[in-house]
Amino acid sequence: MTHEQPESAAPELDRTDLPAFEAAYQAAQKSLTEGGIPIGAAVARGGVVFASGHNERVQNADPIAHGEMSALRAAGRQRSYRDTTLYTTLAPCAMCAGTIIQFKIPRVVVGEARTFDGELDLLRSRGVEVVVLDDQRCVDMMRTFQADRPDLWAEDIAE
Amino acid sequence: MTHEQPESAAPELDRTDLPAFEAAYQAAQKSLTEGGIPIGAAVARGGVVFASGHNERVQNADPIAHGEMSALRAAGRQRSYRDTTLYTTLAPCAMCAGTIIQFKIPRVVVGEARTFDGELDLLRSRGVEVVVLDDQRCVDMMRTFQADRPDLWAEDIAE
Repeated sequence: MTHEQPESAAPELDRTDLPAFEAAYQAAQKSLTEGGIPIGAAVARGGVVFASGHNERVQNADPIAHGEMSALRAAGRQRSYRDTTLYTTLAPCAMCAGTIIQFKIPRVVVGEARTFDGELDLLRSRGVEVVVLDDQRCVDMMRTFQADRPDLWAEDIAE
Repeated sequence: MTHEQPESAAPELDRTDLPAFEAAYQAAQKSLTEGGIPIGAAVARGGVVFASGHNERVQNADPIAHGEMSALRAAGRQRSYRDTTLYTTLAPCAMCAGTIIQFKIPRVVVGEARTFDGELDLLRSRGVEVVVLDDQRCVDMMRTFQADRPDLWAEDIAE
């Protein structure tokens, strides 16, 4: 199976995507239990998750540690990302989208883009395949967080 | 003095820019003495540097720790970046440019863009003021590094 498809067709899920995505969701849930921002991510190669992480703004006072960034930091030094897929519970912001572009990660699976638009158009304009799951658990998780902690959410996206 | 100018004019240097830029250059030199990648950055508010950092790929095996990212991490949680200037010895890559956009940093002073194009057009398209110093020390520092360690340089920009 390849990830190429005509622009009119929806990108397809690989059979390994939903199991791998769970690592991102679990990382988000872990952050929530720690009092942190519930956004998680994971990186997989050949269908196998090799790193995951979550937002660490609260836990480590680290403003660059969005979920995607924490997962990529946890992955350590990689010679190439061209055979990887990044999973994230929420549409990537400009920082995380720029990182995906810079690292030449070819494919991103996004839990949801309802509670935050993110930079999906920027990703697609640079040739990244973007699959949006529209996962209701992720929508509910973020809506609850945004309602409970609007100050923290605004800080995280610099609004 | 404001930073607004007609598009035809070169962006202007503030009198505090060159002293603040030195913090970025010194951070790059520090990294070089540690065997790391010689790219540094600093963040200033009101002309006063409040955080600096350098690339930490070698030192901490951290692929997201480009100079700009390390400086922003060192700055910790900030309510707003709208009154800050980011100084960096090298043109920001897509990760660092995306971060500048996401954090709504309005102004970036770049040491040089000769040895790496970076994403200056993306920054400008999102309204960020970009000043390129074309500092010969920075050009020489990167050219020497790129010639000495082409493998490490390729890894850092995922090429």
